[in-house]
Amino acid sequence: MAKKLMKGNEAIGEAAVCAGVKHYFAYPITPQSEVAEYLCWRLPEVGGVFVQAESEVAVGNMLFGAASTGKRVFTTSSSPGISLMQEAISYMAGAHLPAVLVNIIRGGPGLGGILPAQSDYFQATRGGGHGDYRTIVLAPASVQEAVDLMILAFDLADKYRTPVMLIGDGMIGQMMESVEFPEERREPNNPDESDWALNGAKNREPRIIKSLFLDPQELEDNCLKLEGKYKEIKEKEVRHELYNVSDKNRILIIGYGTMSRICQTAIDELEEEGISVGLFRPVSLFPFPEKELHKEVAKKNIKTVLTIEMSTGQMVEDVKLSVLGIKPVEFFGRTGGIVPSPDEVKEKVRELL
Amino acid sequence: MAKKLMKGNEAIGEAAVCAGVKHYFAYPITPQSEVAEYLCWRLPEVGGVFVQAESEVAVGNMLFGAASTGKRVFTTSSSPGISLMQEAISYMAGAHLPAVLVNIIRGGPGLGGILPAQSDYFQATRGGGHGDYRTIVLAPASVQEAVDLMILAFDLADKYRTPVMLIGDGMIGQMMESVEFPEERREPNNPDESDWALNGAKNREPRIIKSLFLDPQELEDNCLKLEGKYKEIKEKEVRHELYNVSDKNRILIIGYGTMSRICQTAIDELEEEGISVGLFRPVSLFPFPEKELHKEVAKKNIKTVLTIEMSTGQMVEDVKLSVLGIKPVEFFGRTGGIVPSPDEVKEKVRELL
Amino acid sequence: MAKKLMKGNEAIGEAAVCAGVKHYFAYPITPQSEVAEYLCWRLPEVGGVFVQAESEVAVGNMLFGAASTGKRVFTTSSSPGISLMQEAISYMAGAHLPAVLVNIIRGGPGLGGILPAQSDYFQATRGGGHGDYRTIVLAPASVQEAVDLMILAFDLADKYRTPVMLIGDGMIGQMMESVEFPEERREPNNPDESDWALNGAKNREPRIIKSLFLDPQELEDNCLKLEGKYKEIKEKEVRHELYNVSDKNRILIIGYGTMSRICQTAIDELEEEGISVGLFRPVSLFPFPEKELHKEVAKKNIKTVLTIEMSTGQMVEDVKLSVLGIKPVEFFGRTGGIVPSPDEVKEKVRELL
Amino acid sequence: MAKKLMKGNEAIGEAAVCAGVKHYFAYPITPQSEVAEYLCWRLPEVGGVFVQAESEVAVGNMLFGAASTGKRVFTTSSSPGISLMQEAISYMAGAHLPAVLVNIIRGGPGLGGILPAQSDYFQATRGGGHGDYRTIVLAPASVQEAVDLMILAFDLADKYRTPVMLIGDGMIGQMMESVEFPEERREPNNPDESDWALNGAKNREPRIIKSLFLDPQELEDNCLKLEGKYKEIKEKEVRHELYNVSDKNRILIIGYGTMSRICQTAIDELEEEGISVGLFRPVSLFPFPEKELHKEVAKKNIKTVLTIEMSTGQMVEDVKLSVLGIKPVEFFGRTGGIVPSPDEVKEKVRELL
Repeated sequence: MAKKLMKGNEAIGEAAVCAGVKHYFAYPITPQSEVAEYLCWRLPEVGGVFVQAESEVAVGNMLFGAASTGKRVFTTSSSPGISLMQEAISYMAGAHLPAVLVNIIRGGPGLGGILPAQSDYFQATRGGGHGDYRTIVLAPASVQEAVDLMILAFDLADKYRTPVMLIGDGMIGQMMESVEFPEERREPNNPDESDWALNGAKNREPRIIKSLFLDPQELEDNCLKLEGKYKEIKEKEVRHELYNVSDKNRILIIGYGTMSRICQTAIDELEEEGISVGLFRPVSLFPFPEKELHKEVAKKNIKTVLTIEMSTGQMVEDVKLSVLGIKPVEFFGRTGGIVPSPDEVKEKVRELL
Repeated sequence: MAKKLMKGNEAIGEAAVCAGVKHYFAYPITPQSEVAEYLCWRLPEVGGVFVQAESEVAVGNMLFGAASTGKRVFTTSSSPGISLMQEAISYMAGAHLPAVLVNIIRGGPGLGGILPAQSDYFQATRGGGHGDYRTIVLAPASVQEAVDLMILAFDLADKYRTPVMLIGDGMIGQMMESVEFPEERREPNNPDESDWALNGAKNREPRIIKSLFLDPQELEDNCLKLEGKYKEIKEKEVRHELYNVSDKNRILIIGYGTMSRICQTAIDELEEEGISVGLFRPVSLFPFPEKELHKEVAKKNIKTVLTIEMSTGQMVEDVKLSVLGIKPVEFFGRTGGIVPSPDEVKEKVRELL
Repeated sequence: MAKKLMKGNEAIGEAAVCAGVKHYFAYPITPQSEVAEYLCWRLPEVGGVFVQAESEVAVGNMLFGAASTGKRVFTTSSSPGISLMQEAISYMAGAHLPAVLVNIIRGGPGLGGILPAQSDYFQATRGGGHGDYRTIVLAPASVQEAVDLMILAFDLADKYRTPVMLIGDGMIGQMMESVEFPEERREPNNPDESDWALNGAKNREPRIIKSLFLDPQELEDNCLKLEGKYKEIKEKEVRHELYNVSDKNRILIIGYGTMSRICQTAIDELEEEGISVGLFRPVSLFPFPEKELHKEVAKKNIKTVLTIEMSTGQMVEDVKLSVLGIKPVEFFGRTGGIVPSPDEVKEKVRELL
Repeated sequence: MAKKLMKGNEAIGEAAVCAGVKHYFAYPITPQSEVAEYLCWRLPEVGGVFVQAESEVAVGNMLFGAASTGKRVFTTSSSPGISLMQEAISYMAGAHLPAVLVNIIRGGPGLGGILPAQSDYFQATRGGGHGDYRTIVLAPASVQEAVDLMILAFDLADKYRTPVMLIGDGMIGQMMESVEFPEERREPNNPDESDWALNGAKNREPRIIKSLFLDPQELEDNCLKLEGKYKEIKEKEVRHELYNVSDKNRILIIGYGTMSRICQTAIDELEEEGISVGLFRPVSLFPFPEKELHKEVAKKNIKTVLTIEMSTGQMVEDVKLSVLGIKPVEFFGRTGGIVPSPDEVKEKVRELL
């Protein structure tokens, strides 16, 4: 397919179409309503369906129901809407159901504002719902990467039978970039060949999809099954990217999503000033690239680690858990919809030097 | 007041009465329905009201509404019910509203089971809702402590104008212990003297309680106000307890809530075997006693830190963030409603030695 | 009690207080929100409670739940809100639960407008919900009568264990009139003496309140029990009023509620012109004063019956069912919030003459 | 198309497919869940969609939303579910939206039972929602007629832009009969040619679909527009059927739906006994065949009119409004899921003779 200039929110919708998705449930909320606007005409073109539910609570339960049939399902929302889905996400995790949830984060807490933020990091990576579960979390930094990670998200959801969350912000949703889509594919998880989907109990035993296990040993077994899954995910699905990393760095910046691009600008400008700074960008937030980051930080030229977030500091905990005290971990953040500028990043770097 | 033999769930209800609470909103869910059963007759005796709402989503919004008037409000629920309140908790935090939420945790994720667990630690301490907010989290280990921390919870909620969560499990809810209540007190936060409560705009300017700030600078200011609050809380409201801690310890166990009592039994039995193990029990989970734990772990006799939880490992992250790599951090957990036995704890300790 | 100048909506609230009501559930909607505004401070003064529910659907179910305990319960709403309660009203009727519902009717259908109308007559008198049930319907024409009928409504609800509806419109809700309240009374239906209320199964067999009867004979028995109740109500609870009725009348006007007062003005003015017209005002709409009206219409001086409503014609069916063809039944109505003026009434009368 | 043996519920589903329907919203409830079971696989075959909503309230609002786009929409439910849709039905009527609602009536009120009944007659014919509106109501007596009336229902809904209700009971839903479907048709109301549908405001002025009219004159105009529509419907859309009607009848039975078939059996058996009884079967309940019935009743051989219903008496009011006192109107009914037998009908006839 030829390159195409597209808004991030629309590209996210088209990526789902490429991933063979036919079932999209959502409730409108700024700054991601364009996904629904796009899919409400685009999905029918490919035989798909968009249901605007009564509320985000309903969306969560529709995801559960449709996912049970073995079909690819997804939703998009923004911070408060994602909070309303926490019970359902926990249920889907407990029932081993694949689903993709996109959170175009807005400033919070509460109603907050509609401008970009990264303050739902804890909710996404620790599981805002109850119980021993996690969701894979992916954080694109460009429209093209949003497309690629969306398609990956559906593949990972199917492979591990788990909810996968893709988080971005209004910048990525609104910015227009040139983007390339893969050849369109049919829905890869053919429910007819599934050994778990509720696809009609013809010529086979009935199946049950549930998260209720009143026998504690059965429930622990289910939790351990989940735990085993997360262990495998931590081994195989860690993704990160380096930028301007070299022996000349004294400071290593950690940033993700659109924030990492602003850091890149700052890094480029600092390089011209003769200050060499590297960037470690986690692409998967869960699993967090713990070992990979530790290895980079352990390099003797690195004196300080600087975490930069559009929040009051959340990923910084994962950074500390990776660094484990071998180097000082500093933090700089703006929040509530205010995006740190390259100048602020540069100033913070100079201050640390 | 004389000592009284009482079930944990009922004692939690009576503690709220002692704290002057008149407004309780809840929806029944095992294993905490006795709180509602108790308060549905007890609250009217003191002029209070219990509203059984349509759902936990409604409960969350009733808490918001009632708290806005300056009255003490609280709810009790269990894991899935608390997940449904995540949006409202974020809203209350963002609007600086005091409220107390009790989570008698059951095994999860999803519907899970009804037996004791500690697998909602992340949800409680990281804020399962969206945005830059935290809730104070307290974890009692006995019925008496549940009573004391309930009363403290209301005081902290008022002092910092923030939601406070008390977490326990079915053991603490069901066990009967002798318990002493303080002299009954009137509601301490007199709404008439409040400078923020919506208590009727007579002879004063109208007030607004909200979490919506469309101007990003206003929203960041609100987040920084919250951040300042959490900083003060981290300085002043850290609580923990030590048990059998001495120079003879080689291993320091970290456990909270009812789990810590099982650890104590194991520690007592190990002591008789000549193995000396100390226990560090966080009482406040947010703020986590980071410095206090670091100090204990730094003692040279300590070789290993052993975190024990009724989960697949959640508090262990806070332990690692406190220990910061100076000593190895081990983990042992059972989950899904299965409670580690003293024998299992002892075996794990011996294994580490 | 001395006379007091009061708005209709507030007087309705105070009347409920006089009737000993302590439990009021509602959701705000124009043009009756003043009832909630009044009761939110007035009820607590007498130890009562107002719960603003999540929606009118929730209100309906809260009425059911609270009524089950034998306490007097009520709600106030306006047209769309009452539509949302139709399932719950049917459930309460089927379960023989007393409750009072006030509908301050606004123009409809749909969102309509907020001005006075009588277009919910069918819904009120035929049961907008499903199944063989009716509700007693009372229609006051003045603020004083609203007070008197409110208190009667609670007595009838208790006596017959049935939902009772009081219908009015924005005129009666907003107009200020001098009104007298009875001496305040305690809640007359003492749940402790009830033989059906769920008041705690101490020293007695458990009771069940339900509308589910899977055995068709049991369900028919329940319907016949209801039917027997309605028969008794039709015999004993018919209420109406005559105005200017005499042998000189050629035309008998039928009007209810505030519409009847406008008819009285027209009748007074016509009398001065030498045209004598009588007014028959049904006070109970169900039971409709069928025989009483038939008797009046049968008088030989009456040539024509003129039904006047603030709707496109609903009560006119009950008039026809009463008149049964012995005289012509004419109709005049305005709707959608437009109130027929005395001049329009007079013109219609002259036209018929 | 060749004849096919089919259950009523499934035939109703297939009839909707024949009518070109692609949008079906529902929530399961006995005794009509087979419609949803059938359409959940049948609709996708023709490119259609079935959404199982969160509740019947949500179903009603989804109907409103989808109907606004000019597409054919419908739902099926049973008594309590239909009660929950009363607000939405009123909104659709007020906004002039076409929709078809099927009520497979179960015994009520409340939860009632799951066996056949006709006790939602008032709700259907008088509009259980608020305001001056009506819905066309059709009552088939056989599976074939259910199919024919379903297709007619969609045509009438489109023609008059109004909700149309088709009512039946569990007998018609469960019985298997030979049935013939028309050639499959495309959706007749092409939204692209519509002058009101919200089909995308390209190259034209935006359109608004609403039921809110704050200006009372506008609201009255809307009510009069509805009134005009109902007048036209009463003139053109009256449907009824006669059975065994002749000069020999002394008694005329009025029965509709499946009840009329039991009456036919009784009539056949009475005929053999030498007792000639006619049957007047209203097919449209609104508009009720008032004049047609009056004409039949006026025939001098008719001494008594006997209304038979599976309720405690609801249609009997429409019968009385048609007969207007010229002959006595008797009633016989069973309710709560009990269906009158031919013997009971015969006995009642003999008793009247």
